[in-house]
Amino acid sequence: MSAEIICVGTELLLGDILNSNAQYLAKELARLGIPHYYQSVVGDNPGRIHQVLEMAIARSSILIFTGGLGPTPDDLTTETIAEFFHTPLIEHPEVLQDITEKFAMRRREMTPNNRKQALLPQGAAVLPNPSGTAPGMIWQPKPDLTLLTFPGVPSEMRRMWQETAVPFLQAQGWGKQIIHSRLLRFWGIGESTLATKVADFFDSPNPTVAPYASAGEVRLRVSAKAPSEGEAIRLIEPIAAQIQAIAGADYFGHDEQTLATVVGELLRDRQQTLSVAESCTGGGLGEMLTQVAGSSDYFQGGVISYANTVKTQLLGVSPELLNQLGAVSEPVAKQMALGVQKQLGSDWSLSITGIAGPGGGSDHKPVGLVYIGLAAPNQTVDIFEYRFGQERDRATIRYMSACNALDRLRRKLLDSPS
Amino acid sequence: MSAEIICVGTELLLGDILNSNAQYLAKELARLGIPHYYQSVVGDNPGRIHQVLEMAIARSSILIFTGGLGPTPDDLTTETIAEFFHTPLIEHPEVLQDITEKFAMRRREMTPNNRKQALLPQGAAVLPNPSGTAPGMIWQPKPDLTLLTFPGVPSEMRRMWQETAVPFLQAQGWGKQIIHSRLLRFWGIGESTLATKVADFFDSPNPTVAPYASAGEVRLRVSAKAPSEGEAIRLIEPIAAQIQAIAGADYFGHDEQTLATVVGELLRDRQQTLSVAESCTGGGLGEMLTQVAGSSDYFQGGVISYANTVKTQLLGVSPELLNQLGAVSEPVAKQMALGVQKQLGSDWSLSITGIAGPGGGSDHKPVGLVYIGLAAPNQTVDIFEYRFGQERDRATIRYMSACNALDRLRRKLLDSPS
Repeated sequence: MSAEIICVGTELLLGDILNSNAQYLAKELARLGIPHYYQSVVGDNPGRIHQVLEMAIARSSILIFTGGLGPTPDDLTTETIAEFFHTPLIEHPEVLQDITEKFAMRRREMTPNNRKQALLPQGAAVLPNPSGTAPGMIWQPKPDLTLLTFPGVPSEMRRMWQETAVPFLQAQGWGKQIIHSRLLRFWGIGESTLATKVADFFDSPNPTVAPYASAGEVRLRVSAKAPSEGEAIRLIEPIAAQIQAIAGADYFGHDEQTLATVVGELLRDRQQTLSVAESCTGGGLGEMLTQVAGSSDYFQGGVISYANTVKTQLLGVSPELLNQLGAVSEPVAKQMALGVQKQLGSDWSLSITGIAGPGGGSDHKPVGLVYIGLAAPNQTVDIFEYRFGQERDRATIRYMSACNALDRLRRKLLDSPS
Repeated sequence: MSAEIICVGTELLLGDILNSNAQYLAKELARLGIPHYYQSVVGDNPGRIHQVLEMAIARSSILIFTGGLGPTPDDLTTETIAEFFHTPLIEHPEVLQDITEKFAMRRREMTPNNRKQALLPQGAAVLPNPSGTAPGMIWQPKPDLTLLTFPGVPSEMRRMWQETAVPFLQAQGWGKQIIHSRLLRFWGIGESTLATKVADFFDSPNPTVAPYASAGEVRLRVSAKAPSEGEAIRLIEPIAAQIQAIAGADYFGHDEQTLATVVGELLRDRQQTLSVAESCTGGGLGEMLTQVAGSSDYFQGGVISYANTVKTQLLGVSPELLNQLGAVSEPVAKQMALGVQKQLGSDWSLSITGIAGPGGGSDHKPVGLVYIGLAAPNQTVDIFEYRFGQERDRATIRYMSACNALDRLRRKLLDSPS
């Protein structure tokens, strides 16, 4: 009894996109404890899809398809599967109705192409797609064989998987031993330094502890195998607590917690507000903060002072200072932070000024040099200098700048009495 | 004559890592014009690797393996392949020497496990690995069948591919025909509507035209097969031009061009400046604009007026208007646009005010309702209303808002005399 993943799409064979769907589904199968031994990628070609199907049904009892459910001529997953099992396609009026309504609501034109998206093999159940147009299906064309189809768009597939497929599989009896994990997240410590500190935990058989690197962030995954999520969590928690104690403030949260959500909670608890003054990040810090729903409780906004004139006009940065020392300097970072704090009347403020590259660097001020200013309610300002390195690309330097700004505020809030 | 990719590694089946090797190799095969129809992922298991081999040799003449060449007990690609073809493994003294030297140089300890990395099937040629320990192999166990093996570490695999495998394949006569593609990008038109307009091109044999959907954007890929990149481009250009003529302003660029780069070029050509006033996008529009190196030529910055007080204080939006009509309204979008344009003295400005969700919606003003304001140099303001739909998530609504703001400015610039 095992599940196999089949990703349909010529764009995968051309190397146009990364196959994130396969990784997501594989992770989910592991979490649910469903054995998984094969993945295949095949193009939008009926003959070859049939070949893959032939192999797959001989060795797996759950086949999960992604891709090929769209309205264009290349989208042929459903009809190809139906043909393989010599089953006619029938139109589902309720699906056609749903598609029609979705187009009306978005004031887009529906075309005849879209009609085929309401066709499913006789006997197949609709796997609804709340976020997109094309539904998938759950079909058992013969005993001990279940096919699930999903669109290739990752956000749509994931939602359909969680909302419909997982409950279905669990109702079938899958997921009796589950694997549950907690991803511990750290900022401001290197991967090998952390690994050295927690080395003893790497030998633990259950839960297991494994390191993962990510851009700027370091992660440890604590995974436990148990009959239920509750029991798995009871195994995980003592280990996670010990690791957190060792890591101190370098640990910032776990799983979906981000620097932005953690900072948000700290500010919300203290009922304090934050504003930002951004130069080289161009709005990226504000964007990161406002990814969090409810951030309007503490985030007022700020100024994107990309041009120096805006630093002067809106933030009161001295033109002489800009002339003498340049925008990328400690005093300018300080004036930017104080300026936006005063203008918006916020309790805390963050400023970022730096050289994101690839141009703009010099011997004296290389690409990757960034100053972060942090103004506290008493108008004291801490300045932090970063040198991210000239070989780092623009996007990375901007991302690391915004994250480090959040981390500095996080540490300051943890250190300061409310 | 086609090539197939087989990725060996249980970590792929657990969803621990993304399969970037498959994408890289697929792209390379496309570039070299080597037909490629199947990809498989299989775990560190001899029986299942044999199953995949069985299928693969029946349908492909080049098999490319990644993974399983390391020193641990789980690494068994080479011995499994040799066993499949009933061929003994023999030790290569020069490889063993090379491995020994590499360990000495890195002052690491070599273990007995490493010795197996010098074993290859009789008749196989070494595929050297300058960056790592384990070499791969090039082996033709029977006529018309070539196997290439690579380690799973992406940087090592890529180097071996470029330095040894590609010249080998080209010497065999592959890559005489290359495939070159141009990705045409469209905004403001639905996938099926565009497909209907360009339906005739889908039948073109060379170049081929294929549609791709992406979040909000629609793409068409025009691919030509020819002996050289130059000749391929000469085949592509007339088709691309015809499609562009059909699509009009819905076409915005190709390949690496984005809405932000295109808007940037239009502004730079006219030597005009832009500022932004952002509410629900929180800085995301500024961030998108400043992803482009050199955007300081035209982008001055703006105001993140997340709180209503900031809309009033920095943008001069009337508090009465905010009270009566609310922040998400046409008149407020207009005042935001005019306000930032005046404050920063920019030629053009964009404003965004809306409900990103998931909270904040009402019957009257649902989640996904967004107003975009576009102020021109003569201070006229166009307002655009969007209803992205309540089932869309926060990140999508914010992303679509920023992109649509850029698209509206793009269309206005194309329509207006410089």
